Amino acid sequence: MAKKGDIEMVVVMDVNASESDIERVVGEVEAVGGQAFVSPGRMRTVIGLVGDTERFMELPLATLPHVDQVIRVGRPYKLVARELHTESSVVSVGGVPIGEGTFTIIAGPCAIETPEQAMEAGAMAVDMGAHILRGDAYKHRTSPYSFQGLAKRGLEILKDMSDRYGMPTVTEVLEPADVELVAEHADILRVGTRNMMNFPLLRECGRSGRAVMIKRGMSATIEEWLMAAEYVAREGTSDIILCERGIRTFETSYRNTLDVSAVPFVKELTHLPVIIDPSHSGGRRELVAPLARAAVAVGADAVMIDVHPNPQAALCDGPQALRREDITTLGEELFQIAAAVGKKPAIAARPADKASA
Amino acid sequence: MAKKGDIEMVVVMDVNASESDIERVVGEVEAVGGQAFVSPGRMRTVIGLVGDTERFMELPLATLPHVDQVIRVGRPYKLVARELHTESSVVSVGGVPIGEGTFTIIAGPCAIETPEQAMEAGAMAVDMGAHILRGDAYKHRTSPYSFQGLAKRGLEILKDMSDRYGMPTVTEVLEPADVELVAEHADILRVGTRNMMNFPLLRECGRSGRAVMIKRGMSATIEEWLMAAEYVAREGTSDIILCERGIRTFETSYRNTLDVSAVPFVKELTHLPVIIDPSHSGGRRELVAPLARAAVAVGADAVMIDVHPNPQAALCDGPQALRREDITTLGEELFQIAAAVGKKPAIAARPADKASA
Amino acid sequence: MAKKGDIEMVVVMDVNASESDIERVVGEVEAVGGQAFVSPGRMRTVIGLVGDTERFMELPLATLPHVDQVIRVGRPYKLVARELHTESSVVSVGGVPIGEGTFTIIAGPCAIETPEQAMEAGAMAVDMGAHILRGDAYKHRTSPYSFQGLAKRGLEILKDMSDRYGMPTVTEVLEPADVELVAEHADILRVGTRNMMNFPLLRECGRSGRAVMIKRGMSATIEEWLMAAEYVAREGTSDIILCERGIRTFETSYRNTLDVSAVPFVKELTHLPVIIDPSHSGGRRELVAPLARAAVAVGADAVMIDVHPNPQAALCDGPQALRREDITTLGEELFQIAAAVGKKPAIAARPADKASA
Amino acid sequence: MAKKGDIEMVVVMDVNASESDIERVVGEVEAVGGQAFVSPGRMRTVIGLVGDTERFMELPLATLPHVDQVIRVGRPYKLVARELHTESSVVSVGGVPIGEGTFTIIAGPCAIETPEQAMEAGAMAVDMGAHILRGDAYKHRTSPYSFQGLAKRGLEILKDMSDRYGMPTVTEVLEPADVELVAEHADILRVGTRNMMNFPLLRECGRSGRAVMIKRGMSATIEEWLMAAEYVAREGTSDIILCERGIRTFETSYRNTLDVSAVPFVKELTHLPVIIDPSHSGGRRELVAPLARAAVAVGADAVMIDVHPNPQAALCDGPQALRREDITTLGEELFQIAAAVGKKPAIAARPADKASA
Repeated sequence: MAKKGDIEMVVVMDVNASESDIERVVGEVEAVGGQAFVSPGRMRTVIGLVGDTERFMELPLATLPHVDQVIRVGRPYKLVARELHTESSVVSVGGVPIGEGTFTIIAGPCAIETPEQAMEAGAMAVDMGAHILRGDAYKHRTSPYSFQGLAKRGLEILKDMSDRYGMPTVTEVLEPADVELVAEHADILRVGTRNMMNFPLLRECGRSGRAVMIKRGMSATIEEWLMAAEYVAREGTSDIILCERGIRTFETSYRNTLDVSAVPFVKELTHLPVIIDPSHSGGRRELVAPLARAAVAVGADAVMIDVHPNPQAALCDGPQALRREDITTLGEELFQIAAAVGKKPAIAARPADKASA
Repeated sequence: MAKKGDIEMVVVMDVNASESDIERVVGEVEAVGGQAFVSPGRMRTVIGLVGDTERFMELPLATLPHVDQVIRVGRPYKLVARELHTESSVVSVGGVPIGEGTFTIIAGPCAIETPEQAMEAGAMAVDMGAHILRGDAYKHRTSPYSFQGLAKRGLEILKDMSDRYGMPTVTEVLEPADVELVAEHADILRVGTRNMMNFPLLRECGRSGRAVMIKRGMSATIEEWLMAAEYVAREGTSDIILCERGIRTFETSYRNTLDVSAVPFVKELTHLPVIIDPSHSGGRRELVAPLARAAVAVGADAVMIDVHPNPQAALCDGPQALRREDITTLGEELFQIAAAVGKKPAIAARPADKASA
Repeated sequence: MAKKGDIEMVVVMDVNASESDIERVVGEVEAVGGQAFVSPGRMRTVIGLVGDTERFMELPLATLPHVDQVIRVGRPYKLVARELHTESSVVSVGGVPIGEGTFTIIAGPCAIETPEQAMEAGAMAVDMGAHILRGDAYKHRTSPYSFQGLAKRGLEILKDMSDRYGMPTVTEVLEPADVELVAEHADILRVGTRNMMNFPLLRECGRSGRAVMIKRGMSATIEEWLMAAEYVAREGTSDIILCERGIRTFETSYRNTLDVSAVPFVKELTHLPVIIDPSHSGGRRELVAPLARAAVAVGADAVMIDVHPNPQAALCDGPQALRREDITTLGEELFQIAAAVGKKPAIAARPADKASA
Repeated sequence: MAKKGDIEMVVVMDVNASESDIERVVGEVEAVGGQAFVSPGRMRTVIGLVGDTERFMELPLATLPHVDQVIRVGRPYKLVARELHTESSVVSVGGVPIGEGTFTIIAGPCAIETPEQAMEAGAMAVDMGAHILRGDAYKHRTSPYSFQGLAKRGLEILKDMSDRYGMPTVTEVLEPADVELVAEHADILRVGTRNMMNFPLLRECGRSGRAVMIKRGMSATIEEWLMAAEYVAREGTSDIILCERGIRTFETSYRNTLDVSAVPFVKELTHLPVIIDPSHSGGRRELVAPLARAAVAVGADAVMIDVHPNPQAALCDGPQALRREDITTLGEELFQIAAAVGKKPAIAARPADKASA
């Protein structure tokens, strides 16, 4: 949170600004309890504002005569900012840490289709060394004619997976009305990329008592992503995980452009853990392993990977799901790269018999 | 809707595909009741699929051996497509048409702040020749610390505006739970750019009995935008208005890049009316009039413009609201350009005394 | 050009900056002859720099300890900036003005293919009321296997067109070595979108004695575009025309996204005329007329349109060229819209017999 | 190169196409010596074209009546395509391989400023285990007022660096007229991001007898990038290296968005080596090491890194150059990650005394 005495905004006057133009800016700022410090450029004057940014943001500064630019210097997010919370947060879910110093694998089916498919995918996740299971009961589909998920029945299967493999779970929630039910069945509520600015949903998740994973909107700036986290944090939850999953650019050869630079950059700005979803970013099986490796190397605290026992029959995103033959060595490779960048597995390897149970 | 016998998808095999690879594709297609027509390229074979696209989309065609590309040829939207509904739809709201042959002005305050501000802005709208009033009671703010709207009280003021000026209204709705209340107070429900893929909200709006305006998502492709309309149309409403409001690009000099090309292009694909919001696109007062002029010239069926009696005091988006002095000639100019492109005012000019009442 | 005493940059220190960190910044600035004005934020200090930006830009300010942001306040272009050259420039070519108060049509074939094709296209241009002819002899093709233009022979045909119709011409130049030859044959040298940052070419064009048209790079920011103009202006030419032709975005339904907002925005920053090429932006015939209308309405000083007597046989960009039947009313419509926005035709209509000569 | 009998394009007719519309397409194709195979969709017909794509591309297929879509199936690049050259190419420069199985470090100063600065930066490169030196004598600056490089004197210093450290070099070339001189002094000619579509320059580089490195244009699609390589390859050179350096997107927090997905994707399409420049992508020192690690992990054959003995005094891009303290462990980390993805150092470590010589 910005500290008292901090300069929050800078107003740059244009070359024709008069004394009275400058005084007008100062007056507006003082009228809402702020302080304005005028820098004595002979022609282009700069004014630094100290006080409450929220009030300043509602002032029509940019529209005052001879104001050239209004630059926000302070950052609009507070609770999630690293500035006054310099230690990195570790989110712990069912005994599994996500955050600094460790590397976590989240894996499972994109959508839960049947109990058998879910359990087999869960076994694959265990085999590749995963610590957390994924599996969606509500699907956010661009077409109203596509499979929309098993809803409550899917959540029950997810709970069974969790019990069977002794692992915490993450699943998507699509609307405020579903939050309570989802929170009864899963450990992490995931807000999808298309909902990153669905503020009523974010607020409801923040009140659920569960950890919240926020996927970056497909065209969200980093500041907007952090503001989404701020919406959740304001409800009292600090168990928030940011998930980069590719942004929309002019390049359409792959579904999205994975923005690996976001990981180290966002970590400078926030104390929250940052993870990567290589499956939904590339949209094609061949890209998942290379992108997962890049994710670990760039410093992501976890990767989240789709697996499916029979992707040919998947009801959703089959082309990107890893098969048994794709994962035999992947987990091991990821842990090796993690070691090279100073991260150890989130928890010790599970007994092999769990997976084959 | 795609007609029987239509080729819906094209599968392109790579140069190393064998007969059995081709047969495998054919088999998958036939297994879901489709037909596959194989084009006899000696090396790169092309297969045209006829049948139910939804089933084809769930097949893992792209992941079969030696499949190089899977190209969807049919279009995924049906009810909103022009293909089988060649006549342009005109949405009529409280006696005001929006659509082919006419040009409509929607104007009013961005947010409703007080009864006085709302009524004054309404008078400005009338003065510039507007046919429909805008005014929001729920605001979608990126920051949880910003003004969020007057909610129910705002809707009541909007209703008063409507009564006072005898004009229908449009207002934003933010979540499914609010749809009923909003529908009681306004004529057109607006789904904002950040909610364009909030499918539960779209569905609820489709059931409201009101016309629905869908703003294009800030990084939505045209197909995604039309699929959002399809979600609404499936609930039984055909009174849908598409609103272009700028897309997010690398150019950050203005808030968004108004995509005027979308207007003629989308009109080829759909029978729905398409309008433009020049105020939120540019984000700066100086850009509103030029962009509004371009909107009419490119063929938009309406423009939606923010006005404010005192933008310096606006609680939301003040910098883009037009002032009294900005609108003296704008309406007239827009009608002149509309005439040059073959569109006449949506309804005859209102008696001047209404505005000054 | 920035005036003496102007604040050129603002350095924002982070919350942990000490007195000595601030002094270090001041020291660096003073070491290159600048002045640093420190704004007394108690925690986050802001420093305004007065002096030579070029020197400041080469200082490693952003890398100094506890510097949070370095914001350039002055603008890097000088000769083309409106700041100290407030009157709009009108570029006059062979008696035809391009700039404030007038509206100019440039038309002709995309590529010059044969004398007959060129002359017929020229006649079409005259028929639609064009004032300047276009026609390229050198083509910039993405594929080395595509038609690359007639080179010198094409320039000669262009000259013949100019003589035949009594109109000045514009043509593209691809490399510095060709500038002299092209300048002997055409009135305006055009630097294409892929060459907007080909600085040796820009410089050579600036020395040619001809007017220079600079197309915006397909992902060029407005500042980069103006800096390209600055490269030309530094060579002594002030006859520079900026041409918006669509930018590259995530939307791939049309070749490019025409950025109409750039026209009014760029005109605030520069005194140079700004025009639009609706043909290359949309890439499809159906979009050319609507985009041309939007171009005039948004305030472009000219439009440049591809026409072809037989687009089916065009060697380059046939799909976007207008045919005889497309232009019968277009010129008239454009002049009508121009009138609505306060612009009159660049020169009085030509005698009809010229075209049919 | 596409093989005989290959389907190169697919034409999709719209639902209203008649027999004669289909015959017209067939006729156009046969008129240029191609074959057209018609797929019997009852309503939407698909036609596969076999023959010479270059000829087909010049046909106005998309403008024929009732043609809905024209889809290119074959790929326009041939010499650089993996399709008929399935083995990965390894470019060998002065005994250093760049390509499959090995991992190469390229390092050195962004710009060559003085002999002392260059030699010290070279020593840093050796210390971090680099195999190839970088250093530019010609700088491509957006502002005409910025440092433009030492030109010939810079090339001589580069040659001295090469001799002193016994390492091959890479340097940028800006215009065709400079190619010969640059080729006399350096082992790899680099075409910069702003010149990726400067076809005269690409051609000249292809004739130079030197290896050519092509940086991806900042908004170049992957196909355009490969077409740039095709321009070079057509001149007879197969020693071509592709360098990803970040693309321009809506996210402006860092200079560019490093597109790591491009590495595995491009390697499917071409046999050429693909490397990454993490320094110019991020533009900030803090991002260089994480991005370099991600580059190795995603499968890049080399990374190219800016180092500077005193970045505070750098004349170009100082903020991104690594300092002595930044590189102590970086080389070792990169080799460790390379090992985890199956790549070994390009050549055995150099004797330590070389660096301290």
